[in-house]
Amino acid sequence: MTISPTYRFIRVLQYTWKMDLLIFFSCVMVYYVDTYIIERFFILPPIIPTVLGPAIAFFVGFNNNQAYDRWWEARKIWGALVNDSRTWARNVLCYVIPAEDDTQTELMKQQMVKRHIAFIYALKTALRPQNDVTYRKYLSDEELGLIESHSNMHNAVLLLQSRDLETLSRMGYIDGFRYLELNKMLVAFTDSMGMAERIKNTVFPTIYIFFTKAFIWLFTIMITMVCSREIGLWSIVMGSIVGSVFHITHFNGQTLMDPFSTLTTSMPLNQISRTIEINLLEMLGEKDIPAPVKPINNEYVM
Amino acid sequence: MTISPTYRFIRVLQYTWKMDLLIFFSCVMVYYVDTYIIERFFILPPIIPTVLGPAIAFFVGFNNNQAYDRWWEARKIWGALVNDSRTWARNVLCYVIPAEDDTQTELMKQQMVKRHIAFIYALKTALRPQNDVTYRKYLSDEELGLIESHSNMHNAVLLLQSRDLETLSRMGYIDGFRYLELNKMLVAFTDSMGMAERIKNTVFPTIYIFFTKAFIWLFTIMITMVCSREIGLWSIVMGSIVGSVFHITHFNGQTLMDPFSTLTTSMPLNQISRTIEINLLEMLGEKDIPAPVKPINNEYVM
Amino acid sequence: MTISPTYRFIRVLQYTWKMDLLIFFSCVMVYYVDTYIIERFFILPPIIPTVLGPAIAFFVGFNNNQAYDRWWEARKIWGALVNDSRTWARNVLCYVIPAEDDTQTELMKQQMVKRHIAFIYALKTALRPQNDVTYRKYLSDEELGLIESHSNMHNAVLLLQSRDLETLSRMGYIDGFRYLELNKMLVAFTDSMGMAERIKNTVFPTIYIFFTKAFIWLFTIMITMVCSREIGLWSIVMGSIVGSVFHITHFNGQTLMDPFSTLTTSMPLNQISRTIEINLLEMLGEKDIPAPVKPINNEYVM
Amino acid sequence: MTISPTYRFIRVLQYTWKMDLLIFFSCVMVYYVDTYIIERFFILPPIIPTVLGPAIAFFVGFNNNQAYDRWWEARKIWGALVNDSRTWARNVLCYVIPAEDDTQTELMKQQMVKRHIAFIYALKTALRPQNDVTYRKYLSDEELGLIESHSNMHNAVLLLQSRDLETLSRMGYIDGFRYLELNKMLVAFTDSMGMAERIKNTVFPTIYIFFTKAFIWLFTIMITMVCSREIGLWSIVMGSIVGSVFHITHFNGQTLMDPFSTLTTSMPLNQISRTIEINLLEMLGEKDIPAPVKPINNEYVM
Amino acid sequence: MTISPTYRFIRVLQYTWKMDLLIFFSCVMVYYVDTYIIERFFILPPIIPTVLGPAIAFFVGFNNNQAYDRWWEARKIWGALVNDSRTWARNVLCYVIPAEDDTQTELMKQQMVKRHIAFIYALKTALRPQNDVTYRKYLSDEELGLIESHSNMHNAVLLLQSRDLETLSRMGYIDGFRYLELNKMLVAFTDSMGMAERIKNTVFPTIYIFFTKAFIWLFTIMITMVCSREIGLWSIVMGSIVGSVFHITHFNGQTLMDPFSTLTTSMPLNQISRTIEINLLEMLGEKDIPAPVKPINNEYVM
Repeated sequence: MTISPTYRFIRVLQYTWKMDLLIFFSCVMVYYVDTYIIERFFILPPIIPTVLGPAIAFFVGFNNNQAYDRWWEARKIWGALVNDSRTWARNVLCYVIPAEDDTQTELMKQQMVKRHIAFIYALKTALRPQNDVTYRKYLSDEELGLIESHSNMHNAVLLLQSRDLETLSRMGYIDGFRYLELNKMLVAFTDSMGMAERIKNTVFPTIYIFFTKAFIWLFTIMITMVCSREIGLWSIVMGSIVGSVFHITHFNGQTLMDPFSTLTTSMPLNQISRTIEINLLEMLGEKDIPAPVKPINNEYVM
Repeated sequence: MTISPTYRFIRVLQYTWKMDLLIFFSCVMVYYVDTYIIERFFILPPIIPTVLGPAIAFFVGFNNNQAYDRWWEARKIWGALVNDSRTWARNVLCYVIPAEDDTQTELMKQQMVKRHIAFIYALKTALRPQNDVTYRKYLSDEELGLIESHSNMHNAVLLLQSRDLETLSRMGYIDGFRYLELNKMLVAFTDSMGMAERIKNTVFPTIYIFFTKAFIWLFTIMITMVCSREIGLWSIVMGSIVGSVFHITHFNGQTLMDPFSTLTTSMPLNQISRTIEINLLEMLGEKDIPAPVKPINNEYVM
Repeated sequence: MTISPTYRFIRVLQYTWKMDLLIFFSCVMVYYVDTYIIERFFILPPIIPTVLGPAIAFFVGFNNNQAYDRWWEARKIWGALVNDSRTWARNVLCYVIPAEDDTQTELMKQQMVKRHIAFIYALKTALRPQNDVTYRKYLSDEELGLIESHSNMHNAVLLLQSRDLETLSRMGYIDGFRYLELNKMLVAFTDSMGMAERIKNTVFPTIYIFFTKAFIWLFTIMITMVCSREIGLWSIVMGSIVGSVFHITHFNGQTLMDPFSTLTTSMPLNQISRTIEINLLEMLGEKDIPAPVKPINNEYVM
Repeated sequence: MTISPTYRFIRVLQYTWKMDLLIFFSCVMVYYVDTYIIERFFILPPIIPTVLGPAIAFFVGFNNNQAYDRWWEARKIWGALVNDSRTWARNVLCYVIPAEDDTQTELMKQQMVKRHIAFIYALKTALRPQNDVTYRKYLSDEELGLIESHSNMHNAVLLLQSRDLETLSRMGYIDGFRYLELNKMLVAFTDSMGMAERIKNTVFPTIYIFFTKAFIWLFTIMITMVCSREIGLWSIVMGSIVGSVFHITHFNGQTLMDPFSTLTTSMPLNQISRTIEINLLEMLGEKDIPAPVKPINNEYVM
Repeated sequence: MTISPTYRFIRVLQYTWKMDLLIFFSCVMVYYVDTYIIERFFILPPIIPTVLGPAIAFFVGFNNNQAYDRWWEARKIWGALVNDSRTWARNVLCYVIPAEDDTQTELMKQQMVKRHIAFIYALKTALRPQNDVTYRKYLSDEELGLIESHSNMHNAVLLLQSRDLETLSRMGYIDGFRYLELNKMLVAFTDSMGMAERIKNTVFPTIYIFFTKAFIWLFTIMITMVCSREIGLWSIVMGSIVGSVFHITHFNGQTLMDPFSTLTTSMPLNQISRTIEINLLEMLGEKDIPAPVKPINNEYVM
């Protein structure tokens, strides 16, 4: 996710140069085809791009609105994971109080918090195609064996949490009311993980993006054609400029459509996972706490 | 649901050729009627399509926005079914612990999870007009008899689940708190099934679609007429192009309005049902697990 | 609610002929007033309707968006009533298990389900001005007397349900947890009925509709005036066409603003109530089950 | 809140005459300043108002959309208060059953329902600047003394309700489950009152309204200037008409921004409070029930 | 947050003078560059700004819509904190009733309410970069030591609250049902604090703002160029005016994007925290109650 509120000019070029060149050379081609071939037959009436312009701007605007909503929904899901993780840890730590010499239950409590860190990292790895195996650090070998046999590892972690919760309940360490509250958190984790998977697995309707892009190209071509009679070669510049405004705006929307990818606008999953890790380890009173994730170039954080 | 983020050109033609031809021949007709009949009486002033263009684009945009919302709501409902199915299975498996030799209760637990797979498939069959009877596989003959006598089969499955839940409760295998949590899931399934039925059974207001389509045709005709004086026969091409932009955009919206149909943009009900089936069988520790649903042509998944 | 995805042309005329005629004759009048009176003084500059057009389209678009949201919210409320009714019946039937020869409690259970059908019909009658007294069928004479003395009959039905719930609880047929779940449904019914009443009783801000309509008339007049110099009498046709596009779109929105009326676009309250009735009677195992509500002309269902 | 779906023409003048005159005289002034001073220097190019028009319409549209959302949110909050008040009364009446001769508890129950009416009226008085002290009628002197010493009277009423609920619980009249349900309602009242206060106390961002209004004036002036060369004095009329469309639309939005004021478009707090009062008194079986609030001139209800 | 519904003209200049000057001098530069250099090569066709204008207005409108949504969401979060704080205090005070001479538990109750004030102030300090240490006032030295050792102080306060809640529960002062309700509030505080942190830490997508701003500059330049031939030097004025409309509107949106900053449009965190403080101290019956936060210049409140 971008964290810098300003934007360096060099990034604009890095970000758009391919598109800029493509638009420019298309406009060059359009200019020559129009001037030497099409104009023999007809001159494009200016009314055509004039009525298409606002219409296409409109469709781009709606597309981007929906892309932003996806992005913000993804952010909310991971925000909820942060909140619920803190609640989980607080509840496990404060509401399960074993007898003084009962180290086994004490260890079980700690493991239930640490295993949750594993859940977060396993979910992160499933959502974003980076081979991060930090989750292994917070699981015993036995647990790892069991979990890695499942196709959906993060779901399997929750199964272990439920089993431990049941054990604590049967051992009398938690009563029904505390059971309710702890189980509610497991349900919340199931929901958040399912919602994140839904966003990851649901491609934004391809036909929308395809045709909107096609219509923007059409519009770029027409603007170049309409200007070519009046201002000659400069129509290439004008066509490129107008085309860029539409193309870049549409492209900006697309960078938000896939919020768990590795673009600079994507969700900072590494950072959020680390924040949860730090919060939970602090609550456990651990000494060896990892450093927060650093932004890259002070521009974005992954 | 489309899964490929790119779109092959051949698909565009397959997808739009009927509409393209219809628009083209309408424009041809408009051109000749305009040139040989209407122009004797009057020339259409360009201001007319100029003011209609953005207005119609606007109405199309709002329509599509609402169509997208329906589609996304349908996706959320089935996402919730995935989450709640996992929670149901996890809770049934972890929180109901029969005595060691009580195979009957053990079987009952397993049946409550399998019967849920039947619920998912029965709901899928009710929503999408494909004769899929996979749900039969996960029900006993007795249950099948009872369920198929109901007009609403998936609702009848939930009735059976409630009965088993009550039995487990009376037998003392679950206490009030666990009863609450399990019953909450049955309520969630009732809600999700009702919400999916609501979307399926509520036709998007026909007058909206009808008139928006009619206005787009009107606009296509007018653009052709307005250009015909200036560029002659080429007005047919221009009219077709502008008309297509509006028609295709409107049409794209319509493909999202009915998210449980068998269009390529529809919800991947087969795939989601299979995912739930696999997840739940894995949690049961079954060996014989079906393969995930494969995408068709790497383009879409049903 | 319209159920046919297509729209017969005859309906368009039936639906719009009054408005069409009114627009037409207004344009005729405008034409003559403009040509013989106004043009002596000044010619309307085309820029005026050009800037007004998109603005008014915009305001109409937003209005219709809000109308659609009201309509969809109404649909959701009745969808929730369907879901919660099924949950109510399932819970009452499965979770209250009287001793074998306790016919009184058995009858009480059945009455709690039937009385809920009465609630649905009483609510329907309160929302839509049709004198439907089906609710009487599912109430005893004593209950009828009590309920019809209240100004808000459906609220009074819920009072009876609460009393029976309390009785069942005191008789020991339901424990606290089941009480919670059943009471939650009564709260949900109170909420749904209040939400439906809110939509029925809140007139969409009149000034919005009034002025938007006034501005559309203004726009229709101006378009006719602007065309009259250029194309003479044909400006009447053009003014009518452009005016119709805006008027019909606005009018379409208005048909959704009052979702509990008796328009063909209104909520199918009869059908939904009947569906709940059938579902609940089937769950009770009754033999004498009414037929579903039939659509009218295959076009809409009430 | 307006209740009449039609709008009398006289109201339009009453509603807009000040604004109409202001616009008219501004246009007069603009005309003379433009003709005698500005035109010596330059003629305003028509492209300027042409590009400003849709932009400003857009900003007005978004503003109004947000204003409508505030208004509808306010309506939902008071709708929720109606629903929850009924649930509160139903639960208190049905679920607390004192011994037959225990008149004190019976009175306490009745007081808990009546005190809720006081809560509603106290909240209403806090939201709308009318000196309505109906809440005094439903409180004992002792309660009044305590409550009026708080800066936030309605919050203090809830404190009393909580105390009585605790007393009932300690006396054994309600068990934990009923306690849960009743307390949930007190939480809901706290939430609704806080949400209403939030809307009342949060001024819609002033800069939005200020600049949108300023831009509409700018646009009105420019339209007058652009027309003045072509149609002379009549530009005053045209400028006034176009200006009015934008000004009135913006103004309509503003009447919705402050939903607890005493405008005719505001929430009918008097009516809703009275409805709750009547409903609750009927449920208590009282004889002396006040009449519903009457609409004023059949046009609106406060 | 601005509280005055009117806006003094002097503020407009204070608010925009930098931007106004920048726009003005850019237009001056554009004018001379265009007149003496660019016009030798080509004259910008008016169609270019005409098609760009509505498109850019659209993108600005959507941006501002999303900014407003962020702002309103932030307001809702702090509104929820107010509601939940009152509920927390009411529940702690009414539902925990120690024996008459048990001053320790009485003190514990009071401390649980006061510590919540510390939570609110600690959260405020974390969200807004002002060195406010009011939270210290409501914590014992021991608590302060513990809390200030955490990186996330407000989260640590909740940990203390949970511990005290557990202690009260073990001492038998609250039963399971009351435990549920009190714990639910702690979960709500965790959620609200996480949601506020999410908004603070998520920069609105920089590329959106950057490119929208760049496109507005492009548009300003083009409007100046298009007018320069027709009206000479006055094109500087016209370019500045049109540019300002777009720039100011975009800028207004940006002031809402960061609702926890120290702009005059930001959330009145000081005021809301103080309101909670006053409410809770009144409920505790304290004498020494701080005064409400005063607005600054009657214009805004922090």
